[in-house]
Amino acid sequence: MRCFLEIAYNGSHYHGWQRQANAHTVQEEIEQALSRMMGQPVDITGSGRTDTGVHAKQQVAHFDTDSSLALEQIQYKLNAMLPPDIAISACREVKSEAHARFDAQERGYHYYIHQKKDPFLDGQSYYFSQSLHVELMNIAAEKLLGRQDFESFSRVKTEVNNFICEIFTAKWFWENDQLVFNVRANRFLRGMVRALVGTLLEVGREKLTVEDFVSIIAAKDRTKAGRAVPPHGLYLSEVQYLEDIYC
Amino acid sequence: MRCFLEIAYNGSHYHGWQRQANAHTVQEEIEQALSRMMGQPVDITGSGRTDTGVHAKQQVAHFDTDSSLALEQIQYKLNAMLPPDIAISACREVKSEAHARFDAQERGYHYYIHQKKDPFLDGQSYYFSQSLHVELMNIAAEKLLGRQDFESFSRVKTEVNNFICEIFTAKWFWENDQLVFNVRANRFLRGMVRALVGTLLEVGREKLTVEDFVSIIAAKDRTKAGRAVPPHGLYLSEVQYLEDIYC
Repeated sequence: MRCFLEIAYNGSHYHGWQRQANAHTVQEEIEQALSRMMGQPVDITGSGRTDTGVHAKQQVAHFDTDSSLALEQIQYKLNAMLPPDIAISACREVKSEAHARFDAQERGYHYYIHQKKDPFLDGQSYYFSQSLHVELMNIAAEKLLGRQDFESFSRVKTEVNNFICEIFTAKWFWENDQLVFNVRANRFLRGMVRALVGTLLEVGREKLTVEDFVSIIAAKDRTKAGRAVPPHGLYLSEVQYLEDIYC
Repeated sequence: MRCFLEIAYNGSHYHGWQRQANAHTVQEEIEQALSRMMGQPVDITGSGRTDTGVHAKQQVAHFDTDSSLALEQIQYKLNAMLPPDIAISACREVKSEAHARFDAQERGYHYYIHQKKDPFLDGQSYYFSQSLHVELMNIAAEKLLGRQDFESFSRVKTEVNNFICEIFTAKWFWENDQLVFNVRANRFLRGMVRALVGTLLEVGREKLTVEDFVSIIAAKDRTKAGRAVPPHGLYLSEVQYLEDIYC
C-alpha cells in the first residue's frame, strides 16, 4: 500500500528537506527510521523541498510498504524513533498512483516576524524591529495575486523552465505579537517566499512604493527585488490534495 | 541611581542564572554587557537563582550606576549587546535601598507540558504523552495552599534553615494545547517546583491518590515525593514588589 505522511519539523538543525550526500536532512532522518522499522530500505518522496533552516508545519511525503502494521502503529513508532524536532502528525493510506509532489494542488507558506526581542521566538521567527506600515504591505501583497511570471523573485541559479506561478492568497495578519505573511500558490520558485517577504518589508519601511513593487514584478529581474529574509521565519504550512486520492 | 532590570531568557544554553567559575550563566552575560557599556565593572543582584536549563519570562535584578544614560537607552543598548536568548523587557529606577532579592514579595513559576509531539515546543515545554486526570491534579494542588513545611519537595543538599513556604496559588490550566501549572509563593526551595510537578503528575496518572499526596507533604521526606520533571518546562514567570520601591 501507499501511505502519505504528514510531517512537522523544526528545520534549525537540518540542511533542508531533501536527502543529499554529507548533509543531515529531514528526508534522510525519516527514511532511516522507516527503513529500520520495516527491516528493508524505504524511500520517501516529499511534496517539495524546503531549504536549509526552513521549518514545516505540514510537509507531505509518500512511501510504499507491504507491512502488516496498522497506520496508527507506523505513526506511533515513527514518532518514538524520530528526534524531538520531527513529528509525524498523520499517516494515511492513499491510492497506489497518488503522488505527494505531482498531485499537490496548492502549497501554503507562512513567514513569521516579531518586532520586540523575544528569547522564546529566537530561531522560529524573524526579529525585525523597524516599524512597518502593514496596510501598505497588504496593498502591495494583493498585486501578487493571480497567474504571473515571478522571475524577479526566483533564485538566479535554478533549473525550472518557466517562472509562472498562480498565487491564490497573499496576506499579512497579526497572530498575537507576531506579524505573519500567508501565501498560497499552485507552486513556488526556489527562494521565492523569502524574496517576496524581503521586498514587501521594503514597502513596509516605505523605502519602496506599491508602484515600485508592481514594477519589480514586471521587471522579471531578480536584482530589482529586495534581499531575501532569513530562513528561520519561514514555514511550509500546508500542502493540499484532492480528497479522492485518499482510500 | 539604582535600577531594576526585568529580564526574559531562554535558559537552554545556560548553566542557570547565577554567576560561577567555568560555567556560562545569564547573570554573567548581563554583567559583561553592562560593564562594557558603562566602561567599568558592574555587578547585578538577581531576585533569586534559576537552575541549569530553566527559563524566565520575568526575572528581576538590580544594579547601581552613575551613568548619564537614559533608562530607555540602557535597555536599548543592552538588548543590542545581549545574545538573542536574553531580552531586557524593562529598566526602571528604584529607591536606593530597594533590593531585587530581599524586597521580592511573591514569586511565580509556570511549568509547561504538552501531550502531543511538537517540534516547535521542544526545549520549551515538557513532552509527556501519558494521559492525565487534570481534575485530580487540581484537587491535589489545592492541598499545597497556605503556610506549610515543604521539606518533601526540597533538594536534599540545601543550605536553608527551614522549609516553610507560603503558597498563594497552585493551579493547572490549559493554554492552547499546553497544560500549565501556575504556582505562586513568598519563596521556593531548590528544586521545589519540579518535584511538586513530578508528584502531581503521579496523581494525574492515578499512581498516587490525593490522600497519598497529602501524606507526602506531611512526611517532610524528599524520598517520598515523585521524581523531578526536567528543567526545560520551567519558567520563572513573575517577581512581585511593592509599588513604593519605584521612583
